[in-house]
Amino acid sequence: MNRRNFFKKGSLVALGSTLLHPFDSLANEIGYDTTAKYKKAKNIIIIVSDGMSIGTLNMADLYLSRKTGKGSNWLSLYKENKVSRALMDMASASSIVTDSAAASSSWGGGVRIENGGLNISKSGEAHFPIWQKFKKAGKKAGCVTTVPITHATPAGFCVNSKSRNAQEDIAEKYLEHKFDVMMGGGDDYFASNKRKDKKDMYQEFMTKGYQVVNTKQAMFSAETNKPILGVFDDNALPYAIDRKNSKELTQKIPTLAEMTKKAIEAMKNHDQGFVLQVEAGKVDWAAHGNDIAGLIHDQIDHDEAIQVAMDFAEQDGETLVIITTDHGNANPGVIYGSKANANFDSIQNYKHTNEWVLNGIGKETSISQIKERIHYANTIALTNEECKQLLDYYKDIPTANGLYNPKHLPFNLLATMQKLHNSVGWISMQHSADYVELAMYGPGSQLLKPFIKNTDLHYLMLEAAEVENSF
Amino acid sequence: MNRRNFFKKGSLVALGSTLLHPFDSLANEIGYDTTAKYKKAKNIIIIVSDGMSIGTLNMADLYLSRKTGKGSNWLSLYKENKVSRALMDMASASSIVTDSAAASSSWGGGVRIENGGLNISKSGEAHFPIWQKFKKAGKKAGCVTTVPITHATPAGFCVNSKSRNAQEDIAEKYLEHKFDVMMGGGDDYFASNKRKDKKDMYQEFMTKGYQVVNTKQAMFSAETNKPILGVFDDNALPYAIDRKNSKELTQKIPTLAEMTKKAIEAMKNHDQGFVLQVEAGKVDWAAHGNDIAGLIHDQIDHDEAIQVAMDFAEQDGETLVIITTDHGNANPGVIYGSKANANFDSIQNYKHTNEWVLNGIGKETSISQIKERIHYANTIALTNEECKQLLDYYKDIPTANGLYNPKHLPFNLLATMQKLHNSVGWISMQHSADYVELAMYGPGSQLLKPFIKNTDLHYLMLEAAEVENSF
Ligand SMILES: [Zn+2]
Ligand SMILES: [Zn+2]
Repeated sequence: MNRRNFFKKGSLVALGSTLLHPFDSLANEIGYDTTAKYKKAKNIIIIVSDGMSIGTLNMADLYLSRKTGKGSNWLSLYKENKVSRALMDMASASSIVTDSAAASSSWGGGVRIENGGLNISKSGEAHFPIWQKFKKAGKKAGCVTTVPITHATPAGFCVNSKSRNAQEDIAEKYLEHKFDVMMGGGDDYFASNKRKDKKDMYQEFMTKGYQVVNTKQAMFSAETNKPILGVFDDNALPYAIDRKNSKELTQKIPTLAEMTKKAIEAMKNHDQGFVLQVEAGKVDWAAHGNDIAGLIHDQIDHDEAIQVAMDFAEQDGETLVIITTDHGNANPGVIYGSKANANFDSIQNYKHTNEWVLNGIGKETSISQIKERIHYANTIALTNEECKQLLDYYKDIPTANGLYNPKHLPFNLLATMQKLHNSVGWISMQHSADYVELAMYGPGSQLLKPFIKNTDLHYLMLEAAEVENSF
Repeated sequence: MNRRNFFKKGSLVALGSTLLHPFDSLANEIGYDTTAKYKKAKNIIIIVSDGMSIGTLNMADLYLSRKTGKGSNWLSLYKENKVSRALMDMASASSIVTDSAAASSSWGGGVRIENGGLNISKSGEAHFPIWQKFKKAGKKAGCVTTVPITHATPAGFCVNSKSRNAQEDIAEKYLEHKFDVMMGGGDDYFASNKRKDKKDMYQEFMTKGYQVVNTKQAMFSAETNKPILGVFDDNALPYAIDRKNSKELTQKIPTLAEMTKKAIEAMKNHDQGFVLQVEAGKVDWAAHGNDIAGLIHDQIDHDEAIQVAMDFAEQDGETLVIITTDHGNANPGVIYGSKANANFDSIQNYKHTNEWVLNGIGKETSISQIKERIHYANTIALTNEECKQLLDYYKDIPTANGLYNPKHLPFNLLATMQKLHNSVGWISMQHSADYVELAMYGPGSQLLKPFIKNTDLHYLMLEAAEVENSF
């Protein structure tokens, strides 16, 4: 018997109050919240840490526990027995190891497609994106992210595109479908002086009634009765730890939690509800760079967005919150050894990402400057030989290209050197096939089985919200 | 209201049959088996894959799915919604990354101790081992493993010892407490010609009424009315894939599933029930060796033991089955790339472990012999240069020492070469701090919260079986 039939028949209510005592006892004992979970989900907030291996979740929780005495919000939800959990198989049509575009499409279109595309199968068949389905059903829909808002994970919920790389085109499609709140980085794909077609997308959004904001302050001031486009940086937003350690960036760039809060405020009073995707996109980028300070602090930013969503959902009572990742990346972990605790704790002293460190080095940099820079950023004293190895990489840097490390900086080498000091290892600089962690809170979460395929999540969201899949 | 009070009051039963329909509907919908879970657990079977990172569970499931069309038994339990699940924090008293001795002690003694010990804290305080608690409560108790039966994981449930390395002493303690079925490897710690004190432990076990067996056939023939000591190899048992590809080993050495079956048969008719620990100990050893064929096939052997336990438990209805691991190890995973599927599938052609490959090489081996051996074992064609690099390791091998690679074989180098062909990466050759996967079936499984500490499992087992913790 499914949830809806169960309630339509009213059998539970008809049983009267004598029944409720043991029922509630059982439900309470097994952590089953009878008051919330059988409602229809008016709103859905899905919070994705892109490229989060289980070790990333573990290290962020360990980092917080050891630094503050309180672990992550994500795992607190487990300790408090508030959520349903599953493992999810994220394979794409072309590979057991997905990319973010095929991953988001599996959720967004309900069909596994080849890596690289957005809701368009190899045969050319297009799959109707889920945020468009919810728009048609009368809800508001939006996305916030720390990477370009035109990047794979938000795009996979919103549009069809043969290639994830068509980000200028994706910006236009967002306007066409009039999503209600779209915020992140990506000026490169909106500004007239940067687009190939020289279109001023900001002007086009404004013409259609959008408020366009490009600073945190402007975002806070935006009104909630008009749609919002927020673009806060050229490409991705800065890493959380680099932002925290820069006054200028802290003033200009909102956190993921702040964007989440604004997006909820802007959509929560809509009669027919809203759907919101929140992406910590740079967790993936940090994993691609084996960049431990980037990884942990962006995962913590993701964790703070979870709290914002939960605060709203717990009060609201009609919101399904989904917390997950789209694939593993680099499978990092703390490695056994007599100094494992102290080494791992030394990451608390890191002031900047490896990206910040390596971008500040060039072929003209001296050995002693490299030494000083890394000591400043990591409190690690590299040897002259190690600094020389790093410097050698800059002698002959090729022309910029590639998705995650266009400047071919020596990320791998620096992480290998840091490993001796922080006890963190990585299997590669790429995604992994690991099944991923998935948690749900609120109405609809009772539909979750302990192991699902990525595409199941598409249908679960529709069923939880009782939106027909008739497109 | 706790489970026992709930049932003692009989409130559920008193409500009569009209109640049962909606109750069952709800229970069914949320995957809650009302017939089994509120009973007392007469028996407990805990099945531990030692050193299993989430990627190991993932790869064994992927391997089976892609080879046979049917995934692992472990994940089938999730797909069929039969079990409760949790993440478990396995930290020891001395480190965020545990060893197997402290890990088993956390479950066995209910207290976190320093790495290396067995149920004895740094202060000298001894913690009463759980299999002794169950023996006192009248149950039969046993352990089966693929490593020496005197190794850390079984020992942590059975005895107190300042050091996990005191394996000769541990063998004597097993006899002292008269555990009912103890089977695995470890002749080195029982045979008079191998023990320092020259005691013939086999004779001592027989004198006290044990049947001593050292072949699969003798194990099958052992009677079930007398305790059994089974020791099938000098140290650990062979890796599963090496056993499968050797007629001689297949005849002599039982599989983990076969030992599990025998142990259940030997104890299941005991009025007061039994407790059994099953350990796939060489999953950990394979991870320490970055040995992919060893890892996947020993994980599959573990998975077949799960099936044996589940077949019994589903029929029995009074057995709690616990499936987990004691820590991550090497965080292996399949890495993204255009050939990821084909590369990963090539492991289906592997005939032997890397241990088998490397133990067959010596400084006298020729380059072409190395090439041939690796082609035979892995269908990988190494270059002359790669073979030469491997051979170089054998030139100056130091005296044997160390726990997992006493011969200092070039495991890491071979795995690095294989990675190009099988797309599997490893972060290290050591344990990791990752929180671990835990699943439970049957009476007592309703007590599991979504996130627990290792020591919680000790008390859960006692509570599930309603055995008082008064020692
Ligand atoms: Zn990625
Ligand atoms: Zn180990």
